[in-house]
Amino acid sequence: MRSCILKKLVYCCCLLFQTGLQAQENDSLMIRKIADEILQHATAYDNLRVLTKQVGARLAGSPGMVKAEKWGYAGLQKAGADTVWLQACQVPHWERGGRDEVRFQPGEKNQQHKSKILSAVALGNSLGTGNKTLTAPVILVNSFEDLEKKSALVKGKIVFFNYHFRRDLIHTFSGYGDAVRYRVQGASAAAKYGAVAVMIRSISHGENNFPHTGSMHYDEAYPKIPAVAIGLRDADWLNKVLQEKEGIATLKTNGYFKPDTTGHNVIAEWKGSLFPEQIITVGGHLDSWDNGEGAHDDGAGCVQTIEILRALKAIGYQPKRTLRFVLFANEENGLRGGLQYAAVAKQKNETHLFALESDAGGFTPRGFTFAASAEQFEKIKSWEPLLKPYGSLFTPGGGGADIGPLHHTFNTPVAELNPDSQRYFDFHHAANDVFEAVNRRELELGAVHMAALIYLVDQYGL
Amino acid sequence: MRSCILKKLVYCCCLLFQTGLQAQENDSLMIRKIADEILQHATAYDNLRVLTKQVGARLAGSPGMVKAEKWGYAGLQKAGADTVWLQACQVPHWERGGRDEVRFQPGEKNQQHKSKILSAVALGNSLGTGNKTLTAPVILVNSFEDLEKKSALVKGKIVFFNYHFRRDLIHTFSGYGDAVRYRVQGASAAAKYGAVAVMIRSISHGENNFPHTGSMHYDEAYPKIPAVAIGLRDADWLNKVLQEKEGIATLKTNGYFKPDTTGHNVIAEWKGSLFPEQIITVGGHLDSWDNGEGAHDDGAGCVQTIEILRALKAIGYQPKRTLRFVLFANEENGLRGGLQYAAVAKQKNETHLFALESDAGGFTPRGFTFAASAEQFEKIKSWEPLLKPYGSLFTPGGGGADIGPLHHTFNTPVAELNPDSQRYFDFHHAANDVFEAVNRRELELGAVHMAALIYLVDQYGL
Repeated sequence: MRSCILKKLVYCCCLLFQTGLQAQENDSLMIRKIADEILQHATAYDNLRVLTKQVGARLAGSPGMVKAEKWGYAGLQKAGADTVWLQACQVPHWERGGRDEVRFQPGEKNQQHKSKILSAVALGNSLGTGNKTLTAPVILVNSFEDLEKKSALVKGKIVFFNYHFRRDLIHTFSGYGDAVRYRVQGASAAAKYGAVAVMIRSISHGENNFPHTGSMHYDEAYPKIPAVAIGLRDADWLNKVLQEKEGIATLKTNGYFKPDTTGHNVIAEWKGSLFPEQIITVGGHLDSWDNGEGAHDDGAGCVQTIEILRALKAIGYQPKRTLRFVLFANEENGLRGGLQYAAVAKQKNETHLFALESDAGGFTPRGFTFAASAEQFEKIKSWEPLLKPYGSLFTPGGGGADIGPLHHTFNTPVAELNPDSQRYFDFHHAANDVFEAVNRRELELGAVHMAALIYLVDQYGL
Repeated sequence: MRSCILKKLVYCCCLLFQTGLQAQENDSLMIRKIADEILQHATAYDNLRVLTKQVGARLAGSPGMVKAEKWGYAGLQKAGADTVWLQACQVPHWERGGRDEVRFQPGEKNQQHKSKILSAVALGNSLGTGNKTLTAPVILVNSFEDLEKKSALVKGKIVFFNYHFRRDLIHTFSGYGDAVRYRVQGASAAAKYGAVAVMIRSISHGENNFPHTGSMHYDEAYPKIPAVAIGLRDADWLNKVLQEKEGIATLKTNGYFKPDTTGHNVIAEWKGSLFPEQIITVGGHLDSWDNGEGAHDDGAGCVQTIEILRALKAIGYQPKRTLRFVLFANEENGLRGGLQYAAVAKQKNETHLFALESDAGGFTPRGFTFAASAEQFEKIKSWEPLLKPYGSLFTPGGGGADIGPLHHTFNTPVAELNPDSQRYFDFHHAANDVFEAVNRRELELGAVHMAALIYLVDQYGL
């Protein structure tokens, strides 16, 4: 009798084990099918060409934003969504207002040196010089600590923050997190001591001279002074000159805010067959800075999002849960799209099971970072072997900016694609972030990783 | 008494464990020091600029080869080698002999269509059309199997092998291994059935139209017919045309062999302090194809090799074992440098502990592949955690081509840097393999991984 029970038990265990193995094999085959479909028939690269070359720059409030929304709507429809809709949200409407100009004249008194036009771009959200030029002596400052030391010398001057992007940090986003403080807080930090403008060394470690824009923030306690970023070669030159002699700069920038306007998240839905009330979101952000084509940031994330829908449809997949494909509005200088998506979800009492974002460039994926509970991450981590043949590692970390509000509102586990980061800050927020900077296979492999993860969450929940 | 022995045993174990931990921490700090030195002060990128822009193409036997040897000699001396020498070897001397020309004329009889000049390059080691043009009908063939089917139709024709590089294989070197058969064996396979020339679809999955050269081999049993590679866009066009109608092509190629000449491995040595007789080799190959700058293939490997020497010197390292830094001659169309290095080593009865090569491009490193015994690999694998912060994974596989002879002669364990492979075949053996295609950080990170591995083998042997 006992032996009989034992036999049955062993049999059941074997069956469970076999079923587990079988499931794993099925998943492996399914992911291979997804990869084959994307690597052989993806439209992501062609879609990116249209978005970057025909739509182009698409900052919140700009005509490009409206064109991009139409492009996204049509693209998601064509990819096979059940329904596509525009979710309205109020977005800030900052305009550059024309060409930014920075000229530097070495030698304050003895003007024997020729002046030099610097490669410069006004920072996003910064206010301009007010329809006239601003001329003042420049003071070189290497860091916030250095600013404190030199605070008595700053009044009436233009502060040049020459803080270097740390090359020693392997994952470049760590270097970005370190250096971006100067872009965001530099103006007010300098204005506190009476500076009349700031110039910052571009937040990049690249080899070219493109200036890199990006959002900045004014502390209401201090005057809102103009703020520009300088290309790295010119920043090096300026640094060298200012170490030897004084100099004055003349700025003309034109940034200003119009009243908030209406932008849209572009949302596609594919209803689940078994648990339609459980929503899985995948997305990128549709807006870009105005000085490039926004190819890596974040055209890549948008076309990968559309590609996942197209590829899963193409292989005849039927999701168990509801899949949402979202092109978020206004990530760059407001995050209003991401906030609105979570707000509407809360208002409608939706159930958000999981969200995934791609907003770190269309480079070879190295895996994902996850913001999830230990238990959820353990389950996710058990899927890692299935994605190992594609070079994917799962690590704790964060999700993307746009799905952050979802995470905070519902405690939804979120993830972000983690592409190789070495080249990202060569292009980030600069005029060279163009279609030609994106490699087709690298872009497509990102979509493979993402589609596989979406498939696994859809199959097994979290 | 027993308790006393037990205590001592526990104490010894703890000590060993602590010593182990301490060693691991020291290694971790040392590798961090190496990384800091390279990422902040590397000269690899500047060296690559000189090699690609001032030396340029450097095929075996060409004037560029001699210039490159001088460049390498000076570079290794400057980096701080104890001694640098040139190791002579006889190298083949193939010359392209001028511009390759391929014109295609759709419609054999009714010549209403305009002819088109195709983006084409003669394959390395191929013989030309003999100071005149060669005109013949073109037959489209998709694979060797397809050639067998159509063998009766081949006589007197130019065979166009339109075999596609497989996009579904994740590591692109797998796709290369699959497709390169057509470059190497295509001509003789077609000549067997009477073909007068072959054109192959370039061995690439890229998006541009550059034709990709590379070495081919004639089977002595068949006529040595001209062989060219066609750019992918033109290959697609040609395929489309030939599916609809016939057409003839006119080729003019000029490849020929001069007598073998003398080339050199450029070798630098840094004597070990404890085990000077044990040699660790690290290298890349100095030669390149004649139609580009050989930036990824293999300028990257050369400047990484020099960088490792420079960086280890700069941080005050003293190797226990003898380190050899080798820029190998003639990898591309002969491997004579690698063969000579192993032959001289055998003749001198040298002890070769380990060898490492970088010859897969200056892209972000993902780790190394090793050809080593199970025991050796187990030891190597135990170091993996030390390199994990830099994104390095150790996998069994192969070493590089140039250190293959060392492996075969001495059973020396060998390794090859495994950079991200997605972009390599966009540039491989093509005119766009230029300095601008290499990213500084990616190149430097490769040197970091390599230097760290060399350090560990030097410390602990194998």
